[in-house]
Amino acid sequence: MEASAYKFGPYTIDAKEVFHATALSYAMVNLRPVLPGHVLVCPKREVKRFADLSTDETIDLWVTAKEVGVRLEQYHQASSLTFTIQDGPQSGQTVPHVHIHVIPRKKGDFQNNDEIYDAIDVREKELKEKLDLDIERKDRTMEEMSHEASEYRALFS
Amino acid sequence: MEASAYKFGPYTIDAKEVFHATALSYAMVNLRPVLPGHVLVCPKREVKRFADLSTDETIDLWVTAKEVGVRLEQYHQASSLTFTIQDGPQSGQTVPHVHIHVIPRKKGDFQNNDEIYDAIDVREKELKEKLDLDIERKDRTMEEMSHEASEYRALFS
Repeated sequence: MEASAYKFGPYTIDAKEVFHATALSYAMVNLRPVLPGHVLVCPKREVKRFADLSTDETIDLWVTAKEVGVRLEQYHQASSLTFTIQDGPQSGQTVPHVHIHVIPRKKGDFQNNDEIYDAIDVREKELKEKLDLDIERKDRTMEEMSHEASEYRALFS
Repeated sequence: MEASAYKFGPYTIDAKEVFHATALSYAMVNLRPVLPGHVLVCPKREVKRFADLSTDETIDLWVTAKEVGVRLEQYHQASSLTFTIQDGPQSGQTVPHVHIHVIPRKKGDFQNNDEIYDAIDVREKELKEKLDLDIERKDRTMEEMSHEASEYRALFS
């Protein structure tokens, strides 16, 4: 049985937003994706820094991220992937829980490739603000996110 | 015995630039680092996409990158790390050989955090141009890079 909710730093993520889980990791859709298929892959254990992960967690996290990348790139008919960990507050991390940004990429999705990182940074700040405030989600409803998560879940079944 | 040279896509990297190697991965200093300690961690086997790595290579690569990050963050008295893979040409990859950018980060190193990614992108393009042209390296001499690699090598001994 999978969990009904997941820890993401001090926040709780509804299982409806989670589309894949392994023994030690889980993958969730994003409140404000910078591009279609922009998701987050996290260790189940609340760990702030990448170095705090055990070897087993490190392995599980990256094997999971690789598999998520392959399936979402294909699903979104993309041709590349961006993988990024902002590891610690001085690298732009806002939620103190390790998370890999996985983003399917297509030719011309951003005029200049580096713009995607500006977007990740803005969204990372907004993510925390949204989670902190627990305000009504105007950008993406739970229904919308839960629907997207269902579609992705099917890719792993 | 370690190799005297390493493959990096179609290019050859002198062992003097390599400061750490495991069974399946190696870590090298950068021709044009965006910040002190900006290094690249690569699989030894020439593989274009992250998904092309075997599970053993994936594990070795990320366990190595984690260890490199821990040691360089401490060595440079930094407080965070950026880890990025530009996986495929549409995500900004210029050299068709998987490589993780590992960058120690400090408060205020870039005015806006996202600027570091602009810099990675510019450097990634320049890296390929430099390697393609095989022109004289005006930015960093082999002596300078080899000295830096020696310092980092000592962190693993």
